[in-house]
Amino acid sequence: MTQPPDAPSPDAMSVDAISLDAMSVDELRAQIPKIFAPWIVALGLDPVHAEAGLLRLTLPVTPALVHVGGVMCGQASMAAADTAMVLLMLRELGEFRPMTTVQLQSTFVRPVSGTSCTIEARLLRRGRKLAFGRIDLFDEQGRLAVQATTTYALL
Amino acid sequence: MTQPPDAPSPDAMSVDAISLDAMSVDELRAQIPKIFAPWIVALGLDPVHAEAGLLRLTLPVTPALVHVGGVMCGQASMAAADTAMVLLMLRELGEFRPMTTVQLQSTFVRPVSGTSCTIEARLLRRGRKLAFGRIDLFDEQGRLAVQATTTYALL
Amino acid sequence: MTQPPDAPSPDAMSVDAISLDAMSVDELRAQIPKIFAPWIVALGLDPVHAEAGLLRLTLPVTPALVHVGGVMCGQASMAAADTAMVLLMLRELGEFRPMTTVQLQSTFVRPVSGTSCTIEARLLRRGRKLAFGRIDLFDEQGRLAVQATTTYALL
Amino acid sequence: MTQPPDAPSPDAMSVDAISLDAMSVDELRAQIPKIFAPWIVALGLDPVHAEAGLLRLTLPVTPALVHVGGVMCGQASMAAADTAMVLLMLRELGEFRPMTTVQLQSTFVRPVSGTSCTIEARLLRRGRKLAFGRIDLFDEQGRLAVQATTTYALL
Repeated sequence: MTQPPDAPSPDAMSVDAISLDAMSVDELRAQIPKIFAPWIVALGLDPVHAEAGLLRLTLPVTPALVHVGGVMCGQASMAAADTAMVLLMLRELGEFRPMTTVQLQSTFVRPVSGTSCTIEARLLRRGRKLAFGRIDLFDEQGRLAVQATTTYALL
Repeated sequence: MTQPPDAPSPDAMSVDAISLDAMSVDELRAQIPKIFAPWIVALGLDPVHAEAGLLRLTLPVTPALVHVGGVMCGQASMAAADTAMVLLMLRELGEFRPMTTVQLQSTFVRPVSGTSCTIEARLLRRGRKLAFGRIDLFDEQGRLAVQATTTYALL
Repeated sequence: MTQPPDAPSPDAMSVDAISLDAMSVDELRAQIPKIFAPWIVALGLDPVHAEAGLLRLTLPVTPALVHVGGVMCGQASMAAADTAMVLLMLRELGEFRPMTTVQLQSTFVRPVSGTSCTIEARLLRRGRKLAFGRIDLFDEQGRLAVQATTTYALL
Repeated sequence: MTQPPDAPSPDAMSVDAISLDAMSVDELRAQIPKIFAPWIVALGLDPVHAEAGLLRLTLPVTPALVHVGGVMCGQASMAAADTAMVLLMLRELGEFRPMTTVQLQSTFVRPVSGTSCTIEARLLRRGRKLAFGRIDLFDEQGRLAVQATTTYALL
């Protein structure tokens, strides 16, 4: 049983209806140490581009993130995906509102080596209570390395 | 950013607080043609046991569900998982309420052959707005064949 | 522990290296009754466009697929996603080879009403043993309704 | 198209056929700094119990893992789940073998507060090439807080 007709579909709140005073990447960067756990702040995620429904960040592949196999640990990819989506939601909402990750699914398409990677978080839909996103992580050569999909509940 | 302290946790609505007049398996069986699409009714899912937070069903592995490889198609497993969880929710709620599947993840652990399989749907948690479930599909030898996890939104 | 350096990365088999004699949509259409279970054939999925790494299909939203809520059942979306990906793999491989769905994750972004919907299956990566895909289902208005990610094992 | 009959099902390698000299929790603990990235080692995951197909660990909920909402960040839960499963696989295999996380799906059932939590990783099936697991994270009161399912490829 899926998706009855009265499911949340407030088109007035869709991705297009972005707040005119959406946060800049500098403002997002300043929020990181305020809202995330220190262990997440340590990742060094850096927002570099934002537009309606999209946030791009870079993640340095530091030695702290590399495991015995010589590549970035998958746990860092998952953490970066979730963090990127929270930042995108923050930008879309224009303020910090309580929200909770309902689920996050990650698929590891290829290993990540090199010195940095790029994360793109996309808002697929924002309803009144739920938001849906997709996050792609690209390696230094621009190849898709991890793809995640996620659902957030707005509280 | 996950799970702030004000996340929904109404323990009064937890799995334990099941309605005293929960539906019997006969009542659930009678609901199937009323709420599901004809293509789903055709699966022949049959509720055989219910208790608080758990519903067990059988699914006949008919020729209509078998693909060229000679085993039950995975699509039937996914459909059965979702359907089982909706029936369990119906029982837990004691009435039909609009709900929507937010996500369903299936992992295919081993192929399903034989003439029938067994599905167990478990309610992991029911909050005010969201419910979480796990569904296991066992083959005729009782081995886990498919494991699914799912999230529902109560509308 | 994720993605050691010796993970499968045969670039010679990447999406770009598509067989020159890839199947046409007519050839794919002819394969459907041969490889899928009758219950899946009954969906009426129709391949309409193919290119390297992408297959587009239409799915008629017949009354058999509509549940009490008046919209297409989510189970049909999941089944269509898996089926679409198998057909795309068939085209990419140029022949039927045994494969198995390892996992499929679906997120239900909005309900599907109307008389038909469109499915796009994309091959994210094909390694020697594993293939990764993403499937988007769009409603009649072209809005994303379901997003699925999936992993296949080539046997 | 799922699970053809020739899917990997080497029952001789099933969970029951555990090596007689499976690693102790002390041996597993000693492996942690050798195989995981420093950022993961910093989590302080501690194996406390192991039996065939099951590994139990504790995770201290230190201030470094707590976000502005006052609860443990979900990213730590996901990282712990993946790490726990790798350790369980290591124990089951009796030696370190290259493996890669194919996918990991996490569902966040309730927030995690308190001073520690418990993780249980279960091996659902181990084939020749793929292994399937489920990981449950319980809060200090023993309530299910996060449920993850995952697939690993043995290289």
